[in-house]
Amino acid sequence: MLKNDRYIKAALSQKVDKTPVWMMRQAGRYLPEYRKLRSEAGDFMALCTNPELACEVTLQPLRRYELDAAILFSDILTIPDAMGLELYFKTGEGPAFKKPINSVQDIKALAVPDIYSELKYVTDAVSTIRKALNNETPLIGFSGSPWTLATYMVEGGTTKNFGKVKGMMFSEPAAMHQLLDVLAKSVINYLNAQIESGAQAVMVFDTWGGVLSTRDYNEFSLCYMQQIVDGLIRNKDGQKIPVTLYTKGGAGWLEAMADTGADCIGLDWSIDIDKARARIGNKVALQGNMDPCILYSTPKRIEQEVADILSKFGTGNGHVFNLGHGIHPTIEPENVKAYVDAVHLHSGKYHL
Amino acid sequence: MLKNDRYIKAALSQKVDKTPVWMMRQAGRYLPEYRKLRSEAGDFMALCTNPELACEVTLQPLRRYELDAAILFSDILTIPDAMGLELYFKTGEGPAFKKPINSVQDIKALAVPDIYSELKYVTDAVSTIRKALNNETPLIGFSGSPWTLATYMVEGGTTKNFGKVKGMMFSEPAAMHQLLDVLAKSVINYLNAQIESGAQAVMVFDTWGGVLSTRDYNEFSLCYMQQIVDGLIRNKDGQKIPVTLYTKGGAGWLEAMADTGADCIGLDWSIDIDKARARIGNKVALQGNMDPCILYSTPKRIEQEVADILSKFGTGNGHVFNLGHGIHPTIEPENVKAYVDAVHLHSGKYHL
Repeated sequence: MLKNDRYIKAALSQKVDKTPVWMMRQAGRYLPEYRKLRSEAGDFMALCTNPELACEVTLQPLRRYELDAAILFSDILTIPDAMGLELYFKTGEGPAFKKPINSVQDIKALAVPDIYSELKYVTDAVSTIRKALNNETPLIGFSGSPWTLATYMVEGGTTKNFGKVKGMMFSEPAAMHQLLDVLAKSVINYLNAQIESGAQAVMVFDTWGGVLSTRDYNEFSLCYMQQIVDGLIRNKDGQKIPVTLYTKGGAGWLEAMADTGADCIGLDWSIDIDKARARIGNKVALQGNMDPCILYSTPKRIEQEVADILSKFGTGNGHVFNLGHGIHPTIEPENVKAYVDAVHLHSGKYHL
Repeated sequence: MLKNDRYIKAALSQKVDKTPVWMMRQAGRYLPEYRKLRSEAGDFMALCTNPELACEVTLQPLRRYELDAAILFSDILTIPDAMGLELYFKTGEGPAFKKPINSVQDIKALAVPDIYSELKYVTDAVSTIRKALNNETPLIGFSGSPWTLATYMVEGGTTKNFGKVKGMMFSEPAAMHQLLDVLAKSVINYLNAQIESGAQAVMVFDTWGGVLSTRDYNEFSLCYMQQIVDGLIRNKDGQKIPVTLYTKGGAGWLEAMADTGADCIGLDWSIDIDKARARIGNKVALQGNMDPCILYSTPKRIEQEVADILSKFGTGNGHVFNLGHGIHPTIEPENVKAYVDAVHLHSGKYHL
């Protein structure tokens, strides 16, 4: 049994003693020990594809901070890479594909990858990490959302204006649906394989759903996250597996996200958590929602902000503290300690 | 008197025969005649700083399309350039400053520029364009919002995560307010000088307000746009001068934006215009809100989308048709014709 099950309970809107806290990208470049290991390994994918290194990197932040969850160290673009698009990283420019999707024909050639062969390095990492965690804290598995994966696959990498992927969406909607469908099926298999390998919770990152209109979000992003929620293993060995959906820029669509049946909805910082709770907080748990840039300020200011967000959420179940997006690589590690400790210090009174 | 005053009337929520239409960045790189002139002139700033060339570029889209307004061709970063930060353009990377704001000391050294000397090229362009327009269509002047200007000044150029400017905002709020205050005063003088020189409407672009939380948006962006609305010339020669505020990503804050006393609020595409109208449409006019990426599709699809947005707004006054953000450089010019013509073709029935 888990020694610290705050995260699992809070994500399922059950009673806890203190609000659990973790950070998106908590294993990452802001930690000197991460930078050292990455430099020794050669590059980012060398860490992801080696289960022992991925495990070591996953555990690094838990040695420094009293985090209530570990999250698998991996990349969101492993699925398209397994589909044959050949992921690589341009220095200073982020991820890119050597063989992006350029046509309807390219989409027709895609198939759902066999997770246990093509992405064995991920399931091996999950089981290795789970064993190393020794039931101290839960392990979160994750995937990018179909829409978010599709943006990278069609744009070929990061983009500022989403012209290619939206151009295809508006001009060739049937092809776009075919792409999203094969991605949704792949994500279901991928997350279920992570669960079978030991992940005790899963999260879907819809980093780019927020660039869509309401109609297009419903049709091209949320609809496929709905398929994923419906297709996931939700119970294993008598334990519920909480599912969190996060759409950056999705504050306008919280009700629709909650209606999917997900257990927890991730918030960025564009909406106050009390307003979000008033809209959907009885239906689901909420994760968030501190602006990651507050970590650039002082420990005192960080503590104030944590206390403010806890106070806005108020008493009751269903709050997982997190940043509204991933931690930036240039944050000072001691400021992260101020953030984590402040959540535990100030949250007890909301759970009496 | 203006021959075509649809834009002015609609922005003031007065009755029109058809919904007026224009596009953010309508004078720009998607037009081959623009690319030719820019190539001959040498660079972007060579066009901005030469009133005859700025005038020619401003008029180019009006020769091709039945647009209901012209907008001054200029850059949003002219004010920081006039303050001594030395604007330049990195190829493929957008605007940057040679002397960005690195410290509280740098902020203390800033002063409100004398518009009629430091930015004479802008007021000269305004009067040149106004004369050339010959009262056919109105001329819109514009500025970046103080917060948006501050992001570029502190980051030194474009940014993905706003770490520097938000770091300063959270760590040195008094200094940030000093910076925003000098910028707000500068923007007021700048827009009033454009109005005195012939601009018949003005618009404030808050391109980066949407990266803030509600509290921080109110304190660091909206508060200074309020100062601007309060400080602008609102009547000239017996004509009202409509003011439009636009915050990209600001759908959560429409009520607060309308409360500033602006005449018109610009919408991106993240909110349906019927929902925006239900929230604030009796108080102000609405500008928007088509996703610019729809222009990557076909004339038929574009016409459908225009008809859909017109139908969502419905009957009554106070709609200025526009894209939700600037037109992309790789759009085909004939698709713009489909967009402009569709607004006029389908909007008459909503103004009987």
